[in-house]
Amino acid sequence: MMNKQTLQIFKIGGNVINNVDALNAFLKDFSTLKGLKILVHGGGKKATEVSAAMGLQPKMILGRRVTDEATVDVVTMVYAGLLNKKIVAQIQKNNCNAMGLSGADANCVLAHKRIVKDIDYGFAGDVDAINGEIIDVLLQNGVTPVFCAITHDKNGQLLNTNADTIASEVAIGMSTLYNTELNFVFELKGVLESIDDKNSVITEINSEKYKQLIEQGIIADGMLPKMHNCFNSLNKGVHKVKIGDASLVNSSTKLYTTLSL
Amino acid sequence: MMNKQTLQIFKIGGNVINNVDALNAFLKDFSTLKGLKILVHGGGKKATEVSAAMGLQPKMILGRRVTDEATVDVVTMVYAGLLNKKIVAQIQKNNCNAMGLSGADANCVLAHKRIVKDIDYGFAGDVDAINGEIIDVLLQNGVTPVFCAITHDKNGQLLNTNADTIASEVAIGMSTLYNTELNFVFELKGVLESIDDKNSVITEINSEKYKQLIEQGIIADGMLPKMHNCFNSLNKGVHKVKIGDASLVNSSTKLYTTLSL
Repeated sequence: MMNKQTLQIFKIGGNVINNVDALNAFLKDFSTLKGLKILVHGGGKKATEVSAAMGLQPKMILGRRVTDEATVDVVTMVYAGLLNKKIVAQIQKNNCNAMGLSGADANCVLAHKRIVKDIDYGFAGDVDAINGEIIDVLLQNGVTPVFCAITHDKNGQLLNTNADTIASEVAIGMSTLYNTELNFVFELKGVLESIDDKNSVITEINSEKYKQLIEQGIIADGMLPKMHNCFNSLNKGVHKVKIGDASLVNSSTKLYTTLSL
Repeated sequence: MMNKQTLQIFKIGGNVINNVDALNAFLKDFSTLKGLKILVHGGGKKATEVSAAMGLQPKMILGRRVTDEATVDVVTMVYAGLLNKKIVAQIQKNNCNAMGLSGADANCVLAHKRIVKDIDYGFAGDVDAINGEIIDVLLQNGVTPVFCAITHDKNGQLLNTNADTIASEVAIGMSTLYNTELNFVFELKGVLESIDDKNSVITEINSEKYKQLIEQGIIADGMLPKMHNCFNSLNKGVHKVKIGDASLVNSSTKLYTTLSL
């Protein structure tokens, strides 16, 4: 256990992806980061732009977006095509040997279409398994995997999948081989004590504190699934989880949230 | 030399890609093909459809399509995203461990923006080099690479590239390690003696016959660059080149053209 190599997983979302300068600055820092690493990226607003340009109306049920067939085509184009390859090309420019992957590629992330209970979310994927073996082959050959949030069901169907979940599942899956560190880069400096004070970062949250913060209503809304993802990762073998803004990647800040059991 | 493993490279174009049933039938046969293999796919009409849906006008100079910035984004979305991932998901369905790749991924196919002479073709890529080392790692780990025709310049720019050229360059690049066989799947059963007779396939063409056929005007127009590609591959170490229709992949036909030096 002590001799495991460290593997860092970074997940970036729309707030980094939507701004070309911010994205390229992040990717430059990511490229020069020492050691083994994996990037997982979300979608950003480009898929919405392309859908709108193509005259597709977003399909919503009870306020949740539904991935119909036209939409899964658009997100596959944008996430697995445009964004993934632009990100890979930028990392390559910075002399890091990135390889873009969807879950279908080498069956890296196997998923199933979300089971219909009250709502049919369409071609939304829930992750079943990670193919850690081939990811390890890539890492050991100097390749830096770059995952988009498209998976498949091994029956020919592509599925739109939550990027936070992919990052967590990849980190969990690689934990048997590596000392994994999962970094969620988002729009804030960390989990905030007060949403009105951007610097009120709670620097350490353990399982007990986590329960308290939920009871106090400090962790609520969109932070709930994100934090659930994080603690799920820690419970399943991920060594360290951090939440913060893009400065996490170049360690230029000491202000971020570290989660532990 | 005698002990080299055989590696088959198949290139498919629009005529297979544009028909879902034909494509899936081809991919099923490809998936069950024994031995090491690589697939290279062209674009088909989907990029034109998406461009039209987005209201983009194709930019033409002297009858040649020019890849402007909006177009390179669309072809990256369609070729590297939608088509590549749909093809990979289908091959995975058929229990073959496909992995989709653009030239940017692991720097597999390095290119440069076509030098401007009379016409500026925009973001069109001419291939410089193949990263055979990482392709070999994939093959040796049971992975079947599936290339789309998007490359990069190692300076962050993605480039629209001819799929025939990618197939040839990959075959040439892998010839130092493998006994490579390059198969061009297109709309005809092979090189035809008479364009009006679909079965008038010239089954064997060597360098001498090739010159004759050009002089006789039997090889002309679009066949010229295709045949040039083929003989260039043979000159640079590719073991065997075949041209024919989709039945090449399941060997259900003996009617195709074999090229030799």
